[in-house]
Amino acid sequence: MCKTHVLSVSAAKAPFEKTTIERRPLRPDDVSIAIKFSGICHSDIHSAHGDWEGGIFPMVPGHEITGIVTAVGEKVTTFAVGDRVGVGCYVDSCGECEYCLQGEEQHCTKGYVATYNSLDYDGNPTYGGYSQHIVVSQRFVVHIPEQLALDAASPLLCAGITTYAPLKRWQAGPGKKVAILGMGGLGHVAIQFAHAMGAEVTVLSRAKDKESEAKSFGADHYFSTGDPETFSKLANRFDLILNTVSASIDVDSYLSLLRVDGTLVNVGAPAEPSQYHAFSLILSRRSIAGSLVGGLPETQEMLNYAAEHGITPQIEIIRADQVDEAYERILRSDVRYRFVIDISTL
Amino acid sequence: MCKTHVLSVSAAKAPFEKTTIERRPLRPDDVSIAIKFSGICHSDIHSAHGDWEGGIFPMVPGHEITGIVTAVGEKVTTFAVGDRVGVGCYVDSCGECEYCLQGEEQHCTKGYVATYNSLDYDGNPTYGGYSQHIVVSQRFVVHIPEQLALDAASPLLCAGITTYAPLKRWQAGPGKKVAILGMGGLGHVAIQFAHAMGAEVTVLSRAKDKESEAKSFGADHYFSTGDPETFSKLANRFDLILNTVSASIDVDSYLSLLRVDGTLVNVGAPAEPSQYHAFSLILSRRSIAGSLVGGLPETQEMLNYAAEHGITPQIEIIRADQVDEAYERILRSDVRYRFVIDISTL
Repeated sequence: MCKTHVLSVSAAKAPFEKTTIERRPLRPDDVSIAIKFSGICHSDIHSAHGDWEGGIFPMVPGHEITGIVTAVGEKVTTFAVGDRVGVGCYVDSCGECEYCLQGEEQHCTKGYVATYNSLDYDGNPTYGGYSQHIVVSQRFVVHIPEQLALDAASPLLCAGITTYAPLKRWQAGPGKKVAILGMGGLGHVAIQFAHAMGAEVTVLSRAKDKESEAKSFGADHYFSTGDPETFSKLANRFDLILNTVSASIDVDSYLSLLRVDGTLVNVGAPAEPSQYHAFSLILSRRSIAGSLVGGLPETQEMLNYAAEHGITPQIEIIRADQVDEAYERILRSDVRYRFVIDISTL
Repeated sequence: MCKTHVLSVSAAKAPFEKTTIERRPLRPDDVSIAIKFSGICHSDIHSAHGDWEGGIFPMVPGHEITGIVTAVGEKVTTFAVGDRVGVGCYVDSCGECEYCLQGEEQHCTKGYVATYNSLDYDGNPTYGGYSQHIVVSQRFVVHIPEQLALDAASPLLCAGITTYAPLKRWQAGPGKKVAILGMGGLGHVAIQFAHAMGAEVTVLSRAKDKESEAKSFGADHYFSTGDPETFSKLANRFDLILNTVSASIDVDSYLSLLRVDGTLVNVGAPAEPSQYHAFSLILSRRSIAGSLVGGLPETQEMLNYAAEHGITPQIEIIRADQVDEAYERILRSDVRYRFVIDISTL
């Protein structure tokens, strides 16, 4: 066992405190990682605040992890000490079901083990990236390409794959009109991916003051969803709307912006149910779908793609003692666009 | 102009009466049809009862029409006097938009002209198949293959294409598990198509007494949706659920029956909005979609497919003076599975 310093909350909505936890001894296929940066995802806040059922406390959030390999188990073949690596939203899966065999471990029929706020298959709680050190099976570790800085790369491990996977699956590309709904941690990365894939990209955001930044990320058009004319102007326009917003939306209004065969894909989930009229789907053969992060092979592919196309989250680096304040700022949408904790300050 | 006998309602919920209307003189690309049979679709009842906004009265419902060609315009090339033909849910479209050019006239950007309860592009009301005679542009007429009887074929013009098109689009076929939700006019035809396409077919129906008939149509399995165990037994099972029910359903419960990447396709539309939780979609990358009849080329393809595979709606033939009673029986689900009016009794 190996003690490591962490930031943890003792109960829902408690402030963060510096404590220590034990990481497991290195197993033959484990990679031991000195964490350098850990991004703050909105779901960290939901988890740490107990917004979702079943929170496990004390809790160490963080599933946007980058760092350096410090040791490897005897059976580790794809990583070596000194490698620049990342860990995302989950750290184990059965490895045997049809989805694991396809590299879609996020759909593991046994249920994946989340990076934190979860129990591993031995029944031990998992602790995430707000930590100096983590031990993860090599199957759940990815390489960070040299072109990507470890700090700016960290949000790619969740925000990146969460948006890359559906953009690719629903074929954002040349000739396609794609709308990114919401321009936060996920949305600002989604714009860059959709643009790099060759789609015509429109940003739909409540804010009226993000247009020039949206265009700097590669957006072709920008419309405020607060302007009622937006919905008449953009009727029947998009092949794909990627909804990165966790708040409730008027689903029928957004469906009306889709062309025949268009799809509204949700990657953010409001707690309350959403409503739609079946005619909004039927009359133009539209769909509402959902997408959950991505598998490990696709996560590596996404990182390589980001490196090749110069896609970088825009981050604000904070110290470990600023996490409580960062949570408050995220809740008032005062972040452009992702906080990343410098773990050397822990 | 040409007078023809019809069954019409003078106002919402009025009883049917025998009257006459005028059909337009034959245009160069028109086909004149002596109607032999006209199926009764549930949407006829919604329209005649004024359940939907914008009903045009007097109204002559009917969009499941079969008959014999009695005259053709000078530019008609694909039909001749004596041909066995059908007319479905719409009788005109712009012919120029991308959807019309693809043979997906149901998505015409100008808006198709429905077979009844609609205005044609000259502003005249359209009257449907509860009528001795109809005049339709050749683009909207299909051939009824010799193997199909004109009476049993008529429901294929709406119930057939409405179910065939989504089953084909969402790839019902060998290795796929398909559920047909609801076993009425649409459902009992959908079972036959899905079975012929090679899918493993499960029927989900409120009724407990339709199992043997479901299996005679080609179902492999039958489950009553009234039994709460159905939902636990069938969790994560289906690639596709075709929802033929117009009543509201608990969408999340049905989504839970879908595998990863599974789709719930609505062809029936409740008047009230439907509800879902985004997590029902996200966690297994599921979709909710809708589908609206089909284009003319696909309608002809569907008829040919039905002829080739011996797919026949099960009908009860009624006289023209029984339509009011038939509507009442449909509303109490007392029909197996489609009423068809013998127009010779009009």
